[in-house]
Amino acid sequence: MSTYGTLFRVSTYGESHCASVGAIIDGCPPGLELGVQDVQTQLSRRRPGQSNLTTPRNEKDLVHLQSGIEHGVTLGTPIGLLVKNEDHRPHDYSETDLYPRPSHADYTYLQKYGIKASSGGGRSSARETIGRVAAGAIAEKYLKQTFGIEIVAFVSGVGKIHMPFASPSTADLDNDEIDDAISPDFLKLLHTITREQVDSHPTRCPHVETAERMTQYLIPVQRIIRAKDAQDSIGGTVTCVIRGVPAGLGEPVFDKFEAKLGHAMLSIPATKAFEIGSGFRGTEVPGSKHNDPFVTREDGSLGTKTNFSGGVQGGITNGEDIYFRLAFKSPATISQSQETAQYDGTPGSLAARGRHDPCVVPRAVPIVEAMAAIVVMDQLLIQNARKAASSLLPPASTLPPTMVLPAGAQ
Amino acid sequence: MSTYGTLFRVSTYGESHCASVGAIIDGCPPGLELGVQDVQTQLSRRRPGQSNLTTPRNEKDLVHLQSGIEHGVTLGTPIGLLVKNEDHRPHDYSETDLYPRPSHADYTYLQKYGIKASSGGGRSSARETIGRVAAGAIAEKYLKQTFGIEIVAFVSGVGKIHMPFASPSTADLDNDEIDDAISPDFLKLLHTITREQVDSHPTRCPHVETAERMTQYLIPVQRIIRAKDAQDSIGGTVTCVIRGVPAGLGEPVFDKFEAKLGHAMLSIPATKAFEIGSGFRGTEVPGSKHNDPFVTREDGSLGTKTNFSGGVQGGITNGEDIYFRLAFKSPATISQSQETAQYDGTPGSLAARGRHDPCVVPRAVPIVEAMAAIVVMDQLLIQNARKAASSLLPPASTLPPTMVLPAGAQ
Amino acid sequence: MSTYGTLFRVSTYGESHCASVGAIIDGCPPGLELGVQDVQTQLSRRRPGQSNLTTPRNEKDLVHLQSGIEHGVTLGTPIGLLVKNEDHRPHDYSETDLYPRPSHADYTYLQKYGIKASSGGGRSSARETIGRVAAGAIAEKYLKQTFGIEIVAFVSGVGKIHMPFASPSTADLDNDEIDDAISPDFLKLLHTITREQVDSHPTRCPHVETAERMTQYLIPVQRIIRAKDAQDSIGGTVTCVIRGVPAGLGEPVFDKFEAKLGHAMLSIPATKAFEIGSGFRGTEVPGSKHNDPFVTREDGSLGTKTNFSGGVQGGITNGEDIYFRLAFKSPATISQSQETAQYDGTPGSLAARGRHDPCVVPRAVPIVEAMAAIVVMDQLLIQNARKAASSLLPPASTLPPTMVLPAGAQ
Amino acid sequence: MSTYGTLFRVSTYGESHCASVGAIIDGCPPGLELGVQDVQTQLSRRRPGQSNLTTPRNEKDLVHLQSGIEHGVTLGTPIGLLVKNEDHRPHDYSETDLYPRPSHADYTYLQKYGIKASSGGGRSSARETIGRVAAGAIAEKYLKQTFGIEIVAFVSGVGKIHMPFASPSTADLDNDEIDDAISPDFLKLLHTITREQVDSHPTRCPHVETAERMTQYLIPVQRIIRAKDAQDSIGGTVTCVIRGVPAGLGEPVFDKFEAKLGHAMLSIPATKAFEIGSGFRGTEVPGSKHNDPFVTREDGSLGTKTNFSGGVQGGITNGEDIYFRLAFKSPATISQSQETAQYDGTPGSLAARGRHDPCVVPRAVPIVEAMAAIVVMDQLLIQNARKAASSLLPPASTLPPTMVLPAGAQ
Repeated sequence: MSTYGTLFRVSTYGESHCASVGAIIDGCPPGLELGVQDVQTQLSRRRPGQSNLTTPRNEKDLVHLQSGIEHGVTLGTPIGLLVKNEDHRPHDYSETDLYPRPSHADYTYLQKYGIKASSGGGRSSARETIGRVAAGAIAEKYLKQTFGIEIVAFVSGVGKIHMPFASPSTADLDNDEIDDAISPDFLKLLHTITREQVDSHPTRCPHVETAERMTQYLIPVQRIIRAKDAQDSIGGTVTCVIRGVPAGLGEPVFDKFEAKLGHAMLSIPATKAFEIGSGFRGTEVPGSKHNDPFVTREDGSLGTKTNFSGGVQGGITNGEDIYFRLAFKSPATISQSQETAQYDGTPGSLAARGRHDPCVVPRAVPIVEAMAAIVVMDQLLIQNARKAASSLLPPASTLPPTMVLPAGAQ
Repeated sequence: MSTYGTLFRVSTYGESHCASVGAIIDGCPPGLELGVQDVQTQLSRRRPGQSNLTTPRNEKDLVHLQSGIEHGVTLGTPIGLLVKNEDHRPHDYSETDLYPRPSHADYTYLQKYGIKASSGGGRSSARETIGRVAAGAIAEKYLKQTFGIEIVAFVSGVGKIHMPFASPSTADLDNDEIDDAISPDFLKLLHTITREQVDSHPTRCPHVETAERMTQYLIPVQRIIRAKDAQDSIGGTVTCVIRGVPAGLGEPVFDKFEAKLGHAMLSIPATKAFEIGSGFRGTEVPGSKHNDPFVTREDGSLGTKTNFSGGVQGGITNGEDIYFRLAFKSPATISQSQETAQYDGTPGSLAARGRHDPCVVPRAVPIVEAMAAIVVMDQLLIQNARKAASSLLPPASTLPPTMVLPAGAQ
Repeated sequence: MSTYGTLFRVSTYGESHCASVGAIIDGCPPGLELGVQDVQTQLSRRRPGQSNLTTPRNEKDLVHLQSGIEHGVTLGTPIGLLVKNEDHRPHDYSETDLYPRPSHADYTYLQKYGIKASSGGGRSSARETIGRVAAGAIAEKYLKQTFGIEIVAFVSGVGKIHMPFASPSTADLDNDEIDDAISPDFLKLLHTITREQVDSHPTRCPHVETAERMTQYLIPVQRIIRAKDAQDSIGGTVTCVIRGVPAGLGEPVFDKFEAKLGHAMLSIPATKAFEIGSGFRGTEVPGSKHNDPFVTREDGSLGTKTNFSGGVQGGITNGEDIYFRLAFKSPATISQSQETAQYDGTPGSLAARGRHDPCVVPRAVPIVEAMAAIVVMDQLLIQNARKAASSLLPPASTLPPTMVLPAGAQ
Repeated sequence: MSTYGTLFRVSTYGESHCASVGAIIDGCPPGLELGVQDVQTQLSRRRPGQSNLTTPRNEKDLVHLQSGIEHGVTLGTPIGLLVKNEDHRPHDYSETDLYPRPSHADYTYLQKYGIKASSGGGRSSARETIGRVAAGAIAEKYLKQTFGIEIVAFVSGVGKIHMPFASPSTADLDNDEIDDAISPDFLKLLHTITREQVDSHPTRCPHVETAERMTQYLIPVQRIIRAKDAQDSIGGTVTCVIRGVPAGLGEPVFDKFEAKLGHAMLSIPATKAFEIGSGFRGTEVPGSKHNDPFVTREDGSLGTKTNFSGGVQGGITNGEDIYFRLAFKSPATISQSQETAQYDGTPGSLAARGRHDPCVVPRAVPIVEAMAAIVVMDQLLIQNARKAASSLLPPASTLPPTMVLPAGAQ
């Protein structure tokens, strides 16, 4: 349904052409300084029309905070917010309405609800994500201020063009040489990348140092533009890193950190795949090479030398960078004509009207960041509860040393 | 936490070395004929020691049904069940206890709970999945009997060896030719494959017709054995198809079908990635080729010609085969020595004792099927509720034709 | 938190002096005709200023529907709605702010959140109930249209004045005579009472036929007015009947119908007690007299001769009228001076400023109805899911006759 | 359904005549010393056959802990436990099976599930409460050890015999004198009463000092026995106090403390009413007398002079004693013959076989305590999460003094 989260809970409403889209964010810690700008910044990164690569509609998407905040500080009560829809013109019936749009939600919404919004995507529209982004911005404000948690997503692939070190390894059966699933250079990039770097190019695929990488960095742009000219569309991948998350988050066995994260990410429109850490590629690397050995960090605490686990082991965060990759399919709405069938089965040809995003991944970046922030926030609150409860208990002196942190452990 | 589901709800308990592992399955439809054998069959497919490919421990894993069933019929009340742990020998302290095992859950459990089970994996042990498999078997019994729903999972990859048509396409930047993300032959295999076919080979990678495929089919076996000899481990992928699911399942926006499915799958131990339909590979195929056009099925209803969507569009099932792929990392426990650090930071060398699974994917097959059944069951009940409620309303005659199924539609 | 319900889910936001109060109603069956007026009618019954008995503020409380509805029909997607707050003047600091108001939420909100809204009751204000009433009106529209379910609440007590047959029996220890906990006349009134009857008097205590009852009917009015003159306040009780609920609702063991109903009712501001059926008084009546024997209804189905159970047995509705009584404490805000202490412990005298409700029960009537509708709706959807699932199973022929409805049963 | 709680989560299973009844307790803080005896003590207080006042079946009810504990310390993972049913003889069909037992759950279970357990009460049996009591004992162990929280329930009424100060005030319309809803003496008793005092008499109605009270204290016993002789049954009330709960628990607006508590209590079999603090009687007392003024406690913190609120204001605990009263209806199973109808509508006469509890309230005492502990535990964890999160934020210096605790406040 349209509510996500246990202690940090986000509920959203709104179709593409109704009066407004909005959200209620419940469970925000009280005492957080929060202003419109904290939310608006990410909403503006999300809206279309930011470059000639995405859809040219210029939606302003100004957020109106309704409740839960006074004198710029959160009260701990639900934060209501909304963004008005500027476009709610009545939909004119046309012949295209006889067709369920291929790979769109027209057919499935009708099968599920028996009714669908008359115009645009209704609830399956990208405008639905406004509530997510606003909620995520609030979570993020807290996470950054208290734990210094940083969340940065970027475009890691468009069509066949993938960032180096994120591309799938060649499945060469005769070759026993084992590749790293994730290169040290890529891990380093994850550890330092900023949103400014990401936004410095319209593709939101980050700058890289070497020349070859720079070349590859530009290719996706051309591909996006090419798809646009051809009235076609192309998919892509978004990679996201979450830095500074304390160890201990995630609730086995069903609510492991990666399970909650995967759930949240796969609820974003147009997503088809999720991988954390070394993901699919990691399955090709034997345990002896894939395991992340422990080392001592500068501050004396334990860390891991490599990070194929992506910051999560046994469903629980280990304090290392959490990173994951998300697949966005090629947008279903394309301008060129498609051979398909009408609702009544009559075969025919359908061509979409209007302007459409040929590639959604650049705009998906803040949405991914938002959902990541929401998941971390909710899991952090839950683990807070356990730690606070546990800390009041006296040490259980009867325990054998194998069951507690050995002396000297961090 | 250890409860999954809204209306069909599974709660599990149990570590590797406690008295028993078990589950409570709540919300099972009343009136379902259910016997021990319905549950035992899948439990037996899950247990180790079935071939020399997996761990040689011979756990019997006999299920004891406790409640919720009388005269072989479900009462609609919670079904309690348990499987006794045969091995609960006290753990002997050894020097290996000074080390958190790399890529295991030792370190994160201690960080999260401040305490961990003395022996084995505790709650992160594979024995935790017994409750899942039992619950899934119950869901599956219902789904098969009422909707004819069939769920079949199989091993689609071990290390670098992938089944044809499931392997990643070559990321050839100079080549503009577009591959199918998923071949028609693979879709055909998904549409017909049976558990008998899957189990006919110890790898649980299904038989295929052509010679080349047969050869490739055998390679994973060799790879598994090789890993075993080398005291190493290797990961793999499991692909699963769910056939016969009615259109309309899944609850946007946060509980889309693929989001719930991904959540469930990524909660299985050792999983690192999930993709539905064309998944990551589908992002490389332009919309004009990736969209699934509608066609008329034999029974007059609408279906899709291709199925890159994997049976889900807009987060809602469309009646086509649902298929997805899941990555299992290389098992963290290996016999060879690893350079790592002790809890207190002291560098050292750790070698695991005992016998371990070099590759878990064959045993993972029934676990994947179980979680799939649980998700479908829960979503089916929720959609049942809506449909039953909606069916009592008179048709809303004021609606424009664009909002309801056009006359003649299916 | 501020979300209620499993399948019919209501989330609310808003304090007394923020921009607006509102709600998201998720899970409304699609295809329901719904207009502003359906919601406004109950909102208007809730607002203050309707008579000289309640607070004289004239809040218009016009609802603005935001989403989930098109052409006057629900889409099945979340319905967003809001009511603007007209009064959000800045609060002027005064000496009264040094005091936590006795029996108010000032102290507990500060203890819980460390911060509270500057003006009025914040989230503990009665304006919070606007979202509940709006959501309840939507549920009610569905329940009435499909099942003919009718929900009518009324004032059954103000101070020491109780409606006949609802008053507590005298605990006369020497008297072994046993009173009915609930008289047949009262049950008859419950079975027929309408909102029009309830609203025909400003107290919302329904008209009754006999003269004596008429006299008693007027007494509460005088009491309310007297309390107002004395700058004091008085509590009261609201009784509610839900007619036409099908048998089978409620989810044992933790979500029994009365448990969910009690939860919902005790979440209404100022409530302190809940009883269903014969309630506290029923504990004084021996089983032989308190049991509800079965009889055949006119339509051939089974019903009960008496209804001490209040329409619920074993936590599940039995098809009879559901009725319950709810206690509202005397409003904490009174104009006369109170001896109490400041936050810092300094003793002192506090007198509230402004105008206040001397008795909230008349205004509570639509709030009680709303929460009742929400509970029935949610439970109905859940039971719908089970029934739909179960109906697809073949009859379990192996069952002994004691386990299923005997032949000829209804 | 059969799961209760958000962070401290209890799931139960089991009918009266199946293999066992049991529970999974998830979310128990790790590091708590916990042994069988901690659970067994309360289970033994719950079982029948403890005196000639209750049912003479001598069930041993030995608990078997299955998981989540090692070396007598909780691991933080789910605690599985079970108690075997000794009586699972097959049910012999008899003529009584033609009748739904009046005010029992036979009829409603059949309406809900279409099937019911063949013997006894099935899931509506009192044996269902074993899981609750076990779970509550675990919660209680934690609450006592960390916060010194004490929970004591006792029988406050049997039939028309009520403890002094807990009896309903006389609704004398001509008398304007105002009674205390709750007397200071009763509040004092609540503040000091122990389980030892409660258990010192078989009725579990606590000893009192004065002669008159002693006399009344004995009357319920006679009434219970009289009911037994007469093959009849009688209801009663249980009052419970929770001492030492910190201020700040409860989650407005839908999950207020009393709403959660009421939910939990009304899920106990045979309950029909719940009141907190002054409850129904408090509605008769004007605000000027009913408000609880603030005073300074010995430790310098704020407390309230009276406690009509029952320790909860605005849905949040205020640190005072929490007390509530619960109504248990007269048991439906009585030995004397009842005129009723068969399932098929045939009128007839039904007499129950076997031995039955004439009055359940003495045995209900530990069940009420258990559910109270579960609610407090869950709410404590949730508030822990908020406090821990909020404590990391810097003080919001921009806030006006009306929004935070004034200087010198506690």
